[in-house]
Amino acid sequence: MQKITIVKVGGKVVETPESLQELLHDFAALQGHKILVHGGGRSATKIAKQLGIETQMVDGRRITDLETLKVVTMVYAGLVNKNIVASLQAKGVNSVGLTGADLNLITAIKRPVKDIDYGYVGDVKSVQIKELTTLIQRDVVPVIAPLTHDGKGNMLNTNADTMASSLASALTQEFDVQLIYCFEKKGVLSNPDDDDTVITNLTYKLFKQYQESGTIAAGMIPKLDNGFNALTNGVKKVMITNTQGLKEGIDTGTILTNES
Amino acid sequence: MQKITIVKVGGKVVETPESLQELLHDFAALQGHKILVHGGGRSATKIAKQLGIETQMVDGRRITDLETLKVVTMVYAGLVNKNIVASLQAKGVNSVGLTGADLNLITAIKRPVKDIDYGYVGDVKSVQIKELTTLIQRDVVPVIAPLTHDGKGNMLNTNADTMASSLASALTQEFDVQLIYCFEKKGVLSNPDDDDTVITNLTYKLFKQYQESGTIAAGMIPKLDNGFNALTNGVKKVMITNTQGLKEGIDTGTILTNES
Repeated sequence: MQKITIVKVGGKVVETPESLQELLHDFAALQGHKILVHGGGRSATKIAKQLGIETQMVDGRRITDLETLKVVTMVYAGLVNKNIVASLQAKGVNSVGLTGADLNLITAIKRPVKDIDYGYVGDVKSVQIKELTTLIQRDVVPVIAPLTHDGKGNMLNTNADTMASSLASALTQEFDVQLIYCFEKKGVLSNPDDDDTVITNLTYKLFKQYQESGTIAAGMIPKLDNGFNALTNGVKKVMITNTQGLKEGIDTGTILTNES
Repeated sequence: MQKITIVKVGGKVVETPESLQELLHDFAALQGHKILVHGGGRSATKIAKQLGIETQMVDGRRITDLETLKVVTMVYAGLVNKNIVASLQAKGVNSVGLTGADLNLITAIKRPVKDIDYGYVGDVKSVQIKELTTLIQRDVVPVIAPLTHDGKGNMLNTNADTMASSLASALTQEFDVQLIYCFEKKGVLSNPDDDDTVITNLTYKLFKQYQESGTIAAGMIPKLDNGFNALTNGVKKVMITNTQGLKEGIDTGTILTNES
């Protein structure tokens, strides 16, 4: 089986021109098949504010009413995605920007309302990798924005970590997959206040212990849940690191492991 | 050679939900390979206004400063393009939304400043159809937003009529191409005030006569220049019509002809 590396970048990394260019430089240098999955929440919040739309977050998740859906569709699929694609083309990487609607890649179900109505937020239902695989095998590099569709004509806002994990899992049918979550920190920290306490190998058991003690909290929990899901689904390697880790190879940061 | 139909829709058609859905219904029903090229200028103007950015037009062309470039990238590649893709998916058409940056499809040169500085506006330099052709031959339907890139990392705003004409011309290498410009009127009118005066066959000579007399003016001139260019480059059929013409087949509207 051929190898593929899926890099998910989020947050600040994609939203300042300098760190984005640095990331894309390192991403362009990665050998073999690859996919970039990006976020763009900060830009969306900024544009929403300029449009007079208030951003509401619950547990780090964006409440996506119809106006907010328009904003995230514009910002993720338009502004952020196409600037990344144009930058990669300039670096000689033949990329294509996609959402879950393109090529019918990822369909989702509008999240059912329980305690909270998240609005136009999609939970991944299915991933169709046939056309994506053809593109990858032709050495095209997909750049994926965190949006899905419901199959009824509506776009849905979907968490980028979840999209990366779902894609990674589905691609195990065709590839040896490794998944790298790139974020601001060097890795998962045993002491959130000390950047030098990266947990090199994180077992699921240890993750649950840290979660219980509150050491691992907030946005890191769904990220790790997504990571361990990918591992369970056959992804060969899942790593949490910063862009520096991407540069130096895949042996820095936190590697998730199912072994206990 | 296999046939392909390129439909360019602009203006009001794509920007009211009802007319867009009607168009997409008819487009979905078209047999064989096809491509949709869309505009989105009215939405861009509206969003720009909401963001406090003033829209400046010269001869029907948008002056595209850096802030306006962001807006058109968001609106064309994000909002308009992805809503079309999601709608087509709902109609069972496996579509993919692209700009000129994606797959390195269309590179352009930032328009040189003569009398007017159009800003980040791109004049088409080259069209690479290799990856597009593969997608088309796999029965994927490309949906193309009017943006190109300069190969140096910048997106550029490019006229949708020109993009359709350039794509049509390039695709003659691989396909029997017909190009349909869909707009508000039934076709090119010999009396602009009477919708029933459609010129069924418009020769280049007649076009130039009408242009001289002022019967054909404004935005119709570059549209027809683009159309005749496509014809000269080997496109089999070029038609100007409204969405009704698309519905009824390809024998209504104005057909351009190089014969005198």
